[in-house]
Amino acid sequence: MTALIGIDWGTTSFRAWRMGPGGEVLDTVGDGPGILSAAALPGGFAQALQDGIGGWLGTAPVIASGMITSRNGWVETPYLPLPLDASALAGSLTRHEGMHFVTGAVSDPDGPAPDVMRGEETEIIGHLAGGGGDGLFVLPGTHSKWAWARDGRLTAFRTVMTGEVFAALRDHTILGRLIRPGGSSDDAFRRGVEAGRQEGPLLGRIFRARTLALMDRLAPDHISDYLSGLLIGDEVAQGARDVTGPITIIGRGDLAARYRMAFDVLGMTADTAPPGMARRGLWDIARLGGLV
Amino acid sequence: MTALIGIDWGTTSFRAWRMGPGGEVLDTVGDGPGILSAAALPGGFAQALQDGIGGWLGTAPVIASGMITSRNGWVETPYLPLPLDASALAGSLTRHEGMHFVTGAVSDPDGPAPDVMRGEETEIIGHLAGGGGDGLFVLPGTHSKWAWARDGRLTAFRTVMTGEVFAALRDHTILGRLIRPGGSSDDAFRRGVEAGRQEGPLLGRIFRARTLALMDRLAPDHISDYLSGLLIGDEVAQGARDVTGPITIIGRGDLAARYRMAFDVLGMTADTAPPGMARRGLWDIARLGGLV
Repeated sequence: MTALIGIDWGTTSFRAWRMGPGGEVLDTVGDGPGILSAAALPGGFAQALQDGIGGWLGTAPVIASGMITSRNGWVETPYLPLPLDASALAGSLTRHEGMHFVTGAVSDPDGPAPDVMRGEETEIIGHLAGGGGDGLFVLPGTHSKWAWARDGRLTAFRTVMTGEVFAALRDHTILGRLIRPGGSSDDAFRRGVEAGRQEGPLLGRIFRARTLALMDRLAPDHISDYLSGLLIGDEVAQGARDVTGPITIIGRGDLAARYRMAFDVLGMTADTAPPGMARRGLWDIARLGGLV
Repeated sequence: MTALIGIDWGTTSFRAWRMGPGGEVLDTVGDGPGILSAAALPGGFAQALQDGIGGWLGTAPVIASGMITSRNGWVETPYLPLPLDASALAGSLTRHEGMHFVTGAVSDPDGPAPDVMRGEETEIIGHLAGGGGDGLFVLPGTHSKWAWARDGRLTAFRTVMTGEVFAALRDHTILGRLIRPGGSSDDAFRRGVEAGRQEGPLLGRIFRARTLALMDRLAPDHISDYLSGLLIGDEVAQGARDVTGPITIIGRGDLAARYRMAFDVLGMTADTAPPGMARRGLWDIARLGGLV
């Protein structure tokens, strides 16, 4: 019996889960269209939903989080201020087209560094719901998110554009000219992290990805890994300065492994959250919102 | 009577001076083809030279500095190590096609942060030859150069990719999406410098150029100036940390003015070198090399 259908619907990704009465996963769809693709379909978001999980619809409440509630999504919902917990998100669900939408969060809206997220709050809530406790949470991605939690609530966060800037540097600056594709090199990545932790302006240190290669001290097929390490090393060294509590990486695959490696090079320990945090957050919010 | 013809020949620029017996300027050509354009001409560099200053040739020795001695230039010359002065450059002139080429400099070739320059060393030498003394020299550009001099010698330098990265962020990341062209805003630039001096990873702080605009706290036609200020602010704050001696900006126009403004916001004073440093350096090197 299906108790809840949960969707994590991002800019370029769509993941959905059919859950039973205890929140257990009965079925998964992992490759539906993100909101950019969905919006371009003749039938828009409704068609994307029907195409992806049409067979599930009508059997249980549907709850969705992520960029689907942004200006370019299905329904735009206002950001919630910090500190934020699962109850606040549950109390702010937006009903639209028969579905329940989890809104995003805003940090420091009137201060010098305003920031926003849609989707990651649900993953962090999922971790806290599982007894994940306090500390720093790092969510790697095109735009990585650094979030702080205390007493089960999300208290602060910031966005770091490391992934997108890496691609722009590689594809649209002189740093890309010498790059040759090749196998992944952890050594080159670690060398980059060491350069990333150092003093001096970041936009000066990145030039080493060119000069070291020009001087035959960095192989053309290692430049990309070195540059990635340098940017992530700067992000981690600057971001985790003065952090004393536990650090948890919420993410999957190679990128999460790279962040863990960067923390390791810098002499810090970061744990990786078990998979399923988005689904778990959706379940918890739905439960508190009376949907299950 | 012409005593020397000097050329500052860069990747995208060509400036030449006809000088009299005292180094005084008799004539100037300011808009010849850079090495990328020159190399593409049917007659290559020789044709570019003939097109640009053909009427001067044969009247005096010709000395040239800049990227013209790089791998993509007319003749590739080896970099000189630091510390470096005008005599060392004069003693390493390369004769090719009847001209005299000033080579570039390499910093920290075997260390963790190797760096190179071709052309800027001549500008700095020009400043030192004029009694410019010691200190920190900042040469703004697509790739800005930060150089340190002591006792009339160039002792260290580094390249910072601020200009090129600014263009890549504006044209190839989400930060450019909200930008509208408009008049130049010194206020927005100064706000950016303030964000540039702050703590935290640079690739996090730049995201404010988007979030402030999304929250209607930064006008679309001010985003570009704000982002420029943020990158230059980070470069200057990180680069000039612990600097105690005099700071001199070698450069022209709006960009040099912006760097001076950034130093001002950060509570530091930077002087601007008088124009003509490249020509003066060429003259001094030619004199020490026995060409005049």
